[in-house]
Amino acid sequence: MALFTLTVFGLIAVINAEEIKYNPCCSNPCENFGICNRIAWTEKYTCDCYGTGYYGVNCQTPTWSKWISNLLRPSPFTVQAITTNGKIIWKIVNKIKFVHSYFMKFILKIRALSPEWPEPHNTAADYITWDGYTNKTYWGRTLPAVPEDCPTPFGVVGPKEYPDVYKLVEEVFTRTEFKPCPRGTSLSLPLYGQHFTHQGFKSVPSDDTLTWGQHTLDMSHLYGETLGKQLALRSMKGGKMKTQIINGEEYPPNMKDCPGVNMDYPENVIEEYRFAMGHPFFALLPSLMYYSTLWLREHNRVCDVLAEHHPQWDDERLFQTTRLIILGETLKVTVEEYVQHISGMDLKLTFEPDLMHDSSMRWASGRLHVEFNTLYHWHNMIPNYFYIGNKTYTLEETFFNMSSLLDNGMNVFTTSMANQVAGRGAGGRNMAKSLHKVAYEVIKMNRKLRLQPFNRYRELFRLPPYKTFEELTGETKLAKVLSKFYGGEINAVEYFVGIMVEKRYKAKMWGITLTESIGNYALRSVFSNVIGSPQYWKESTFGGKIGFDMVKTASLKDIACRNIKGCPEFKFEIAEAVTEDTDKGMIYNDIESDGTEGTGQHKTEL
Amino acid sequence: MALFTLTVFGLIAVINAEEIKYNPCCSNPCENFGICNRIAWTEKYTCDCYGTGYYGVNCQTPTWSKWISNLLRPSPFTVQAITTNGKIIWKIVNKIKFVHSYFMKFILKIRALSPEWPEPHNTAADYITWDGYTNKTYWGRTLPAVPEDCPTPFGVVGPKEYPDVYKLVEEVFTRTEFKPCPRGTSLSLPLYGQHFTHQGFKSVPSDDTLTWGQHTLDMSHLYGETLGKQLALRSMKGGKMKTQIINGEEYPPNMKDCPGVNMDYPENVIEEYRFAMGHPFFALLPSLMYYSTLWLREHNRVCDVLAEHHPQWDDERLFQTTRLIILGETLKVTVEEYVQHISGMDLKLTFEPDLMHDSSMRWASGRLHVEFNTLYHWHNMIPNYFYIGNKTYTLEETFFNMSSLLDNGMNVFTTSMANQVAGRGAGGRNMAKSLHKVAYEVIKMNRKLRLQPFNRYRELFRLPPYKTFEELTGETKLAKVLSKFYGGEINAVEYFVGIMVEKRYKAKMWGITLTESIGNYALRSVFSNVIGSPQYWKESTFGGKIGFDMVKTASLKDIACRNIKGCPEFKFEIAEAVTEDTDKGMIYNDIESDGTEGTGQHKTEL
Repeated sequence: MALFTLTVFGLIAVINAEEIKYNPCCSNPCENFGICNRIAWTEKYTCDCYGTGYYGVNCQTPTWSKWISNLLRPSPFTVQAITTNGKIIWKIVNKIKFVHSYFMKFILKIRALSPEWPEPHNTAADYITWDGYTNKTYWGRTLPAVPEDCPTPFGVVGPKEYPDVYKLVEEVFTRTEFKPCPRGTSLSLPLYGQHFTHQGFKSVPSDDTLTWGQHTLDMSHLYGETLGKQLALRSMKGGKMKTQIINGEEYPPNMKDCPGVNMDYPENVIEEYRFAMGHPFFALLPSLMYYSTLWLREHNRVCDVLAEHHPQWDDERLFQTTRLIILGETLKVTVEEYVQHISGMDLKLTFEPDLMHDSSMRWASGRLHVEFNTLYHWHNMIPNYFYIGNKTYTLEETFFNMSSLLDNGMNVFTTSMANQVAGRGAGGRNMAKSLHKVAYEVIKMNRKLRLQPFNRYRELFRLPPYKTFEELTGETKLAKVLSKFYGGEINAVEYFVGIMVEKRYKAKMWGITLTESIGNYALRSVFSNVIGSPQYWKESTFGGKIGFDMVKTASLKDIACRNIKGCPEFKFEIAEAVTEDTDKGMIYNDIESDGTEGTGQHKTEL
Repeated sequence: MALFTLTVFGLIAVINAEEIKYNPCCSNPCENFGICNRIAWTEKYTCDCYGTGYYGVNCQTPTWSKWISNLLRPSPFTVQAITTNGKIIWKIVNKIKFVHSYFMKFILKIRALSPEWPEPHNTAADYITWDGYTNKTYWGRTLPAVPEDCPTPFGVVGPKEYPDVYKLVEEVFTRTEFKPCPRGTSLSLPLYGQHFTHQGFKSVPSDDTLTWGQHTLDMSHLYGETLGKQLALRSMKGGKMKTQIINGEEYPPNMKDCPGVNMDYPENVIEEYRFAMGHPFFALLPSLMYYSTLWLREHNRVCDVLAEHHPQWDDERLFQTTRLIILGETLKVTVEEYVQHISGMDLKLTFEPDLMHDSSMRWASGRLHVEFNTLYHWHNMIPNYFYIGNKTYTLEETFFNMSSLLDNGMNVFTTSMANQVAGRGAGGRNMAKSLHKVAYEVIKMNRKLRLQPFNRYRELFRLPPYKTFEELTGETKLAKVLSKFYGGEINAVEYFVGIMVEKRYKAKMWGITLTESIGNYALRSVFSNVIGSPQYWKESTFGGKIGFDMVKTASLKDIACRNIKGCPEFKFEIAEAVTEDTDKGMIYNDIESDGTEGTGQHKTEL
């Protein structure tokens, strides 16, 4: 009879079989992120609930202790609300050391200890393998992949195929007019982020599962990722790095003086303008060279200070200890200035790793997650024009062309970046055309790695999944466009797309999902760095009190002032006032303009 | 006047200057292992006490909490005494799950969480460097090196030069007559240890600072240390490894069938007897091939079981999951049988990583220490003759010659090893002449890495430094020999030498220093393995309940029985009675024989 059905209703029978006989794990039957395993070829499965705090066939029932901890743990919204409101109270808290430490420790405990570590998932395989664990060229992943044999790329919901990536980017990401960041974020911030994060996010273009990074913040973008490169970039005297003088200022050395250092310059760039830096990608933009120059000068300055205090130290020891100081300084300013601005918190974030010395913090382990890499594509914040000194440069003009930096000098470049407003990140439709290829790449990479849809990540970060597209975007027009692409299924919205189109959350730069998850990823990355461990975080590591103090008191303002003639003012925020403008930021330009006109940009006076 | 002195008494003045102007850190002025740093070229120094629990100029004063914890923490002798006495009480404790868990957890807390991790010291440099931290080809080290610019190789005490290594080994290590292990340890144990530890201890002969191991227990001696080697050793069918049939039994494959696998066979070994195994060194001895064979068979057996339960799994998933099961099984039997025997404890040691899931255990991090590698040279335990089946093989005959295994078969080899007594480890003068070169190498390596003297390690492991050579050796003759070599200075005795000549401690196999420190090193290595982490230690990692149960119930007895025809009895201890013979073991053969005559060995009936 079954055979008869198969013969007569051949096509339907096959389709039915397909619809029914899929891997049962495709529908995520295990709740609370229990691990689903199919039983043989059947439609049965088992859930491994160990470590989730839940039990039952589908990990649906909390243990008593989990139930209580769920009850006691404040929701992400509560934490955000508490730390972003009551400026006056926080100003007092920030001043009273032990009270501040209490709150900072609390933030670190809910942020820096998760996602779990060692991470059970990575891009090597859909299950735990020794090869995947030991081979650190694979990315970690926060959630396991959607199984390979599912009815749709999203599991069981949504369209049978992914939407066309080019059409998707065109309709969802294209900048209609430049929308400035409602927080008044200066261009210095996204450019700092780009420079800083490239030390870790090192995709291998030919294979999306691989990274050539070290999964840790190591300043390899300054010192090179190999010993050979490091030695080529060092002067081998007094611990210092090679530099060259251009227009009376110190800059990274020329490639011809650093044999063995590879850089991604296209053929048409003449030798004179080929600079050797720690990261080959830093050939691309003047801003990357700007930050490289800043840290290079700071490195050489620190060497002089150490040499004075330790006349018996050789080049090697001066270099190595200076590198640790520079690393400490960058972590310090990254937490206290960069992450602080992004977080929008009124609690002062401080880089005090010793707060975690009595915790279960696991230093120096784990790897960077592909989701962290994915959410860090903030190309919306890049404007179409750069106003540097008295000149206007198109974005495209600056590619592989350092003249905007060299012609104007470090001082003018600093103040120009600090006074030009960055683009708004949240809400979509704010990406310059020439950057669309980056969005294509990210989305294609996400698909290749079968990332779970956006709503699943919201669950993981204890945020309620969105129910409608309007709820996601906070408006109707883009919501309609997205609904068209994803067959009206909100649970099919892809991770990167969701992150980028989500409505801005109150006074934040971004939507709540990015704000919440980057908080975890970033604080974990910074605070789990080995130099923060009880074994490393001590005076002797940094050449004594003198070096440790440099780390503990570092600020970008000081670093820029000390190392750039004329002491220009470095800042991530243009005007305090813009921060308060929370409502406007949530409204789309295609419903109501948020203050800018056409493709014009905030042109601020320098 | 100073100039005058210099001119007239030129030579003396220079010598005096040398004697005074050494690095003040050479005398270890910082107590409690605070980190010493010289100030400029002066004779002043600073001590970095952070994390030691002590403060003061020389880290000499305990904090209140340290003082209390010192008071409450039982001494190593107390812990040893409690866990090695009262057999009846322990038999009861071992049976009551929650009571046993309490004690096991206590042991793990005092053992597996130290030495500190991430380790601040490694063989890259005498100070903390980023390069040393990231480059995992450097060994970790438990204590920092003796500074380079010291008056003596031991710091400030002892002779100006190290004693001649060849004379030292000749007089201190040479086997005068075979002394059997007073614990009745069978040959299976040191041979298991040799096989097991080589997965981690992978010295680079050309450079003592380097290792080519992964700093973790990974079964790379079975699967190869690279992916290429692994693939060459796999059959690529059903997850299984390649094997070959010899005399109707399964053995590792021939090298010609595994292109790309390198093995250390000398030229004169014919192709037929060249076997491909995961570790090139395993060409050396039949016992290494014996254990490889055992695990190879177990691997292929587990594959069959998994394939039956997971018909939908491909070769890759079967292989990867089986590898994790095999790793779990080896860790289980290593703790519960091998370490249990060595520890001599009456508390039953169990491999239950979940006992530590709520602790500050740091999984999957750190590296192996050069001191751990050093103390694991148990060549004293290797006899001059092997009695296998009805034949006697000299030790030298077995080098690169597998006939003692192949001619007798796995069954006879198992029972022969299980019934021949191993040599006594503790007390020196029990190393076969043909193994002396290993001792030369270890001592030379220790010197190159400027390891601190033996007594410093005793301090670290909370044991009182020895005051006399007699106290160290428990007798007078060898004490006198040692005193001659080290200029009468007990604080100059080298680490490896001290470990090997120390008098046996009560019912243990070894002296108290090795027993204590190996407890820490071994339990930390095993329990910090990533498969024991909360993220990995769950059913789904091991292919469901079936695989997890295999790990949780593994024993060498079962593994040997299941995989070897005739189910031979596997054991690490020949006769319970010998264990009680504690006093005899402490007395030197050159004072009083401990039961054996001449070079004859315990020949037990098979």
